[in-house]
Amino acid sequence: MKKKLSENTISHNETGTSDKTPGSLLNKPVSRRDILKMAGVGGLGLLLGGGAAGALFSSTQAIARRKKVLNAGRSDRTVYPFYGKHQAGIITPSQNFMCFASFDLTSTQLDEVRALFKKWTTAAASMTQGLMLGDEPANTNPNLPPADTGEAAGLIPSKTTITFGVGPSFFDSRFGLAGKRPAAFPDLPKFRGDALQSEWCGGDVGVQVCADDLQVAFHAVRNLARIARGTAVLRWTQEGFQRTTAAEPSSGTPRNLMGFKDGTGNPDVNDEEQMKQVVWVQPEDGAPWMAQGSYMVVRRIRMRLEVWDRSTLDDQQQTFGRYRDSGAPLGAHNEFDPLDFSAKDASGNPAIPVNAHSRLAHMDGKTKLLRRAYSYSSGLDLKTGQLDAGLFFICFQRDIRKQFVAMQERLAASDKLNEYISHIGSASFACFPGATEGGYIGDQLF
Amino acid sequence: MKKKLSENTISHNETGTSDKTPGSLLNKPVSRRDILKMAGVGGLGLLLGGGAAGALFSSTQAIARRKKVLNAGRSDRTVYPFYGKHQAGIITPSQNFMCFASFDLTSTQLDEVRALFKKWTTAAASMTQGLMLGDEPANTNPNLPPADTGEAAGLIPSKTTITFGVGPSFFDSRFGLAGKRPAAFPDLPKFRGDALQSEWCGGDVGVQVCADDLQVAFHAVRNLARIARGTAVLRWTQEGFQRTTAAEPSSGTPRNLMGFKDGTGNPDVNDEEQMKQVVWVQPEDGAPWMAQGSYMVVRRIRMRLEVWDRSTLDDQQQTFGRYRDSGAPLGAHNEFDPLDFSAKDASGNPAIPVNAHSRLAHMDGKTKLLRRAYSYSSGLDLKTGQLDAGLFFICFQRDIRKQFVAMQERLAASDKLNEYISHIGSASFACFPGATEGGYIGDQLF
Repeated sequence: MKKKLSENTISHNETGTSDKTPGSLLNKPVSRRDILKMAGVGGLGLLLGGGAAGALFSSTQAIARRKKVLNAGRSDRTVYPFYGKHQAGIITPSQNFMCFASFDLTSTQLDEVRALFKKWTTAAASMTQGLMLGDEPANTNPNLPPADTGEAAGLIPSKTTITFGVGPSFFDSRFGLAGKRPAAFPDLPKFRGDALQSEWCGGDVGVQVCADDLQVAFHAVRNLARIARGTAVLRWTQEGFQRTTAAEPSSGTPRNLMGFKDGTGNPDVNDEEQMKQVVWVQPEDGAPWMAQGSYMVVRRIRMRLEVWDRSTLDDQQQTFGRYRDSGAPLGAHNEFDPLDFSAKDASGNPAIPVNAHSRLAHMDGKTKLLRRAYSYSSGLDLKTGQLDAGLFFICFQRDIRKQFVAMQERLAASDKLNEYISHIGSASFACFPGATEGGYIGDQLF
Repeated sequence: MKKKLSENTISHNETGTSDKTPGSLLNKPVSRRDILKMAGVGGLGLLLGGGAAGALFSSTQAIARRKKVLNAGRSDRTVYPFYGKHQAGIITPSQNFMCFASFDLTSTQLDEVRALFKKWTTAAASMTQGLMLGDEPANTNPNLPPADTGEAAGLIPSKTTITFGVGPSFFDSRFGLAGKRPAAFPDLPKFRGDALQSEWCGGDVGVQVCADDLQVAFHAVRNLARIARGTAVLRWTQEGFQRTTAAEPSSGTPRNLMGFKDGTGNPDVNDEEQMKQVVWVQPEDGAPWMAQGSYMVVRRIRMRLEVWDRSTLDDQQQTFGRYRDSGAPLGAHNEFDPLDFSAKDASGNPAIPVNAHSRLAHMDGKTKLLRRAYSYSSGLDLKTGQLDAGLFFICFQRDIRKQFVAMQERLAASDKLNEYISHIGSASFACFPGATEGGYIGDQLF
């Protein structure tokens, strides 16, 4: 497969070191704890910084950092820059874990919301680099609560990304921003079969934290919630995971909890032109403050695993329209073979059934969205005694009407998979463009 | 620190290959899928097999496996043998993730329970080696439900361990085993401050699955539950995690969600003599079927993180009796410095307060237990809007009366940490000795 590096992509090179690192590191005095933390920032390999990222290292501080880098061992110390044209965490390759947080604003003052986003921006820029929040004194003054809750101390940045968006309710009468709501960001309709539970729906602000270490992701959500005290409260949270390790480096597409490869049909995030078409809001789309941002839809999709596990392999494969083992479309041989909707099976029926998930999700072949889903497992559903597990579906797009809504209407109507799943949570967020250093997330709206 | 290899310890050597592997692999025909899977079993390095594990490889199959091993890349493909003198997952170094499952038996026939444990033994021996359940036809016959749910296909064994035990309720009148209940395995008393919720308590059978991949651990619990259909049902489950990656390989002791290092005082699992004293039930202890087994207590300990985060660093350090940053006892310098209870601070007060957690947990310095705890995060508590997160405490011991109960009575009475925590779940299980190949888990009781 071709590989192109898009603006926001970091190519990680184990043996190389780089003179480029997000400039924000240089803006404050370096403490012992910072030096310790910089071991985590090191090992960047080649940083192809977009936007404001990138500053030449030439100080003695830089030398201290490099020494740490040389001693850094083999962990993957990739750091994704927080500042840039786009927010990280959208076309960034999926990390292993996710903590999603939905917040409700308790303040009705736009000034306070603005102040919160400024604080969140600073904190997120620190945490994505593996730094502790606050300067040294704020974490060592015995008479104060520490500025950082501490559970990620000593851990590497773990490729953390933190992605912020605002929900439809943010555009109600509270903040005087109703006129700014983009047409491409409608309320989601009620889809056929929806079994939404209010405790898993909505939110004024959505934050997707992804990292290769669940403890690091948890730390970020917790500290963002702490910073929000007085202005916003958590409405719901959800952890998600993927497989951490594959048998072969090339084993590629992760499997969902139904045992099938999930995400095969995703557009190529390295294809810049396609990302413009599918993911990034463009200046001509009618909401200038969202240009280079993206609209996110999240759905908490419970899988009826106990029922699924009693269905035959044939039934499972007909449901997805793919072979479980290889991920290839029915009638084809390889995972990435195109879906051939005209192919017939031995009985003359469509090889890929008309109600197969992959067929319906494929639509006209042109309408795409970028999936970034995680599995979730939240213990037992006490009402039924069955596993509360499934897929925390996340997708990004340029226009929710034309992409998620169009696709989901089709799936809700006739997807064979509906026998085995239930959408119990739903939310959507307008994820701002990236912030530039000195600015803050959302500044073009606020 | 000294390193001794105990009987059940695997020293993983990346470049070495071994002629020893759990013999069960050799007992069935080798399919394409098996060969693929054996890449996962390979890279064992040096297997110091205990019990019946170990069989010489000399077939062409073995050569195929070895080739896979040589191509296996750098993932840590350690396999912990399932069969042996002790069950794995007790003194095994903590893996990164845990899924705990508590089951209730729905059958009252000891025969059916025995049959379940036999099936579980076979399945656990497979899954800990990274194999799919069932033979090839059982996963490819389109007219049957696959024998394996498939979400761990292509993943490495991830150091999976599966540890089985039976709860106090197993010794009620149903199975005629009341007379076999060990004195060292009493009902837990109600401790001061307990806030137990029945949905997080008890169970006839407890299964601790640990692995370096959460998806692999989930897969094991799900498939064990599936196998149990008709004989046992899940009562509750809980996922847990540790930090996945540390900045330095030597950064050692993981931190809990309060930001403090957790497990510093644990006994050395490589000290065989101490393990006999602390962990392994001995033949002279009065319950011969439990000899070389261990008693497990689990407690779901919710942390009031929002309150903790508002307390000062001084208060936090006084609570644990240790410094947050280094983990050293108050008044000392290094994490592993001994607790000096006679040391005074500048004001003449004990450097380690009399109600500090580490002081009370230390007891007389001789009564120990083996902690094997994980952090948990289960979203929000909908009643309070606060994080439902904390510590899933697991400990192993030779006598629950003298170890956990003695310690917990002391902690419940006066631990300063009680301001910030709440025990909401509790269970205990008698974890059998290891099974030998040809036998099954629990066969000495059943």
